[in-house]
Amino acid sequence: MFMPVGTVASVKGVPQEVLEELGVEILLGNTYHLYLRPGVELIRTLGGLHRFMSWPRAILTDSGGFQVFSLSDLRKVSEEGVTFRSHLDGSSHFFRPESAIQAQIEIGADIIMAFDECTEYPAERERVRGSMELTLRWAERSKMYFEEHKGEVPWRSFRPTQLACPDEASGPTCSEETQALFGIVQGGMDLELRKESAERTRGIGFAGYAIGGLSVGEPRHVTREIVEATVERLPADQPRYLMGVGTPEEIVDYTNLGIDMMDCVLPTRAARHGLLFTSEGKISIKQAQYASDQAPLDPLCGCRVCRRYSRAYLRHLYASNEILAQVLNTIHNLSFYLDTMRAVRHSISLGRGARFLSEVWSRAKP
Amino acid sequence: MFMPVGTVASVKGVPQEVLEELGVEILLGNTYHLYLRPGVELIRTLGGLHRFMSWPRAILTDSGGFQVFSLSDLRKVSEEGVTFRSHLDGSSHFFRPESAIQAQIEIGADIIMAFDECTEYPAERERVRGSMELTLRWAERSKMYFEEHKGEVPWRSFRPTQLACPDEASGPTCSEETQALFGIVQGGMDLELRKESAERTRGIGFAGYAIGGLSVGEPRHVTREIVEATVERLPADQPRYLMGVGTPEEIVDYTNLGIDMMDCVLPTRAARHGLLFTSEGKISIKQAQYASDQAPLDPLCGCRVCRRYSRAYLRHLYASNEILAQVLNTIHNLSFYLDTMRAVRHSISLGRGARFLSEVWSRAKP
Repeated sequence: MFMPVGTVASVKGVPQEVLEELGVEILLGNTYHLYLRPGVELIRTLGGLHRFMSWPRAILTDSGGFQVFSLSDLRKVSEEGVTFRSHLDGSSHFFRPESAIQAQIEIGADIIMAFDECTEYPAERERVRGSMELTLRWAERSKMYFEEHKGEVPWRSFRPTQLACPDEASGPTCSEETQALFGIVQGGMDLELRKESAERTRGIGFAGYAIGGLSVGEPRHVTREIVEATVERLPADQPRYLMGVGTPEEIVDYTNLGIDMMDCVLPTRAARHGLLFTSEGKISIKQAQYASDQAPLDPLCGCRVCRRYSRAYLRHLYASNEILAQVLNTIHNLSFYLDTMRAVRHSISLGRGARFLSEVWSRAKP
Repeated sequence: MFMPVGTVASVKGVPQEVLEELGVEILLGNTYHLYLRPGVELIRTLGGLHRFMSWPRAILTDSGGFQVFSLSDLRKVSEEGVTFRSHLDGSSHFFRPESAIQAQIEIGADIIMAFDECTEYPAERERVRGSMELTLRWAERSKMYFEEHKGEVPWRSFRPTQLACPDEASGPTCSEETQALFGIVQGGMDLELRKESAERTRGIGFAGYAIGGLSVGEPRHVTREIVEATVERLPADQPRYLMGVGTPEEIVDYTNLGIDMMDCVLPTRAARHGLLFTSEGKISIKQAQYASDQAPLDPLCGCRVCRRYSRAYLRHLYASNEILAQVLNTIHNLSFYLDTMRAVRHSISLGRGARFLSEVWSRAKP
């Protein structure tokens, strides 16, 4: 599955009913952003994030570790946790594994993440080992806190009507439902440390496992090597989640390596910059060649944008800096990613292997 | 009818399929903006504005006169026409009645407007008379040019499939269809000049009549007085269009005075500033009082925003400067305006008078 990123409880420009129509089954929310605005306490009071943003399907929240690493100017890491400054107003905050889990319990996503340190790149081996060990200790603390407090999710007492209890015979009753906590593998670009991190994280025991600390500036072949070596150390019968990846080609490739879940800002962010993914390759809609092009953006795409609008119109909206450009471009790119993943799942369900998927993909490119 | 404003071939932030769902029957496009970007020639080549923006329902374009008046820094009016500078790049352009009509024929809206001079406010009586006389001469030239060239609309030879020919027995064949040209009444804030302008414009003969040059800074009671005096000099069996007006209260009021058509940026522009029209009055969604308000924006509204999202969520989107705030707020405000006009039409169809409409309106306000 591919998870669109809805940083502050919104996939930028796209109403939730359109996300449903696109077939989005799970959204990613950013704990760091939600903690700063509108604040965790408010979300909890209003019954949790599903109810707050009117999203009845699944949500995953990250732990805030990556945003503290990438967005905060001043951060200070200690054994206890991380002091950081808000990118909004410069105010000072402290996240520890326990508070990051507490925040995620109050937000109430279906899947939440252990608090980790995202190791910078490049880094010396000793630094990477130290950071990995810290992440492992934080993983233990995250799990311990979660086990003690997992009953405190806001929706156990405050379940929105559209999220009706499943049939009690076929699953847990609402009152027994809790979130799923995933661990995060770190270890920089060091294959041995990655394997060790995977095995020791697995030893702590989580509902699923993420591979973090990639796409931080390293070459693409290194990312792939790390993923390949790490994923085989993670249990195949539990979700394996590669964080912050990638292009359409990459998400197919990583699926074939055994990855079950991915998220990335690429489809949504690229859309806002006029970069559109199509079955004929990537299109920069601002280019003059599209000014009088009456073809749909992607003739093979059935999304509401390709069914109705021409490249000429989309190019005009972008050139005129119209809000609708961001809206329509984002809808199309998400549709393309979700179609890609649907094709991957369909192919898997037919028992066809990695090679087939890659071939389909290559054929679709110019 | 109320016409949402789609300045450069888009109602900011709202896809055309949502406008259809809202029940928008006619959109306004701005000739001045479309002339500058994407350009009239491009729109003509692509089959006209309906096809370019994928909008199968009606469109009205203004003549550009008001935008030249309000947006252009340097403009110079002569008998022949207006020299003005583009607000985009400062380039110099010249509009004369003939070229404004030519541009509107190439854009291909269903209703187009004569080229007029929007008199500034305040102005001396002699200046207002001179300006009104100029608008009358331009109205004659507009009509003459239109009559000679009305067969040149792009869709006569290039009709998009979704705009299928009506049944030939019940109306003109496609090949005979032309646009409707409306005249514009000017005359500043002078009741006598307005009456004279109305009668002489009527004398030239148009398919419909607009009242222009209002909402340019004059007090509201003056606007109303001018409308009341002007509308009764215009034929009741042809469309009477009040340009650039107004609040929900005003559009009901003007309908009761005999106005058939209105357009205004207010619902869309206010939405982008977080000002929302509801049956309980105007709401500024940025206010802290809405931070944890779980009620829908307007409990009496059935639009897709009010059916799904809370005030708390809309407030959060606005406070976080999310694109979705502009999208959802605009959808709601347009829905409110269109609901208002539907109620007005329903009441008219029941044979109920002005008083009733005003009362319904007052009851709905707090």
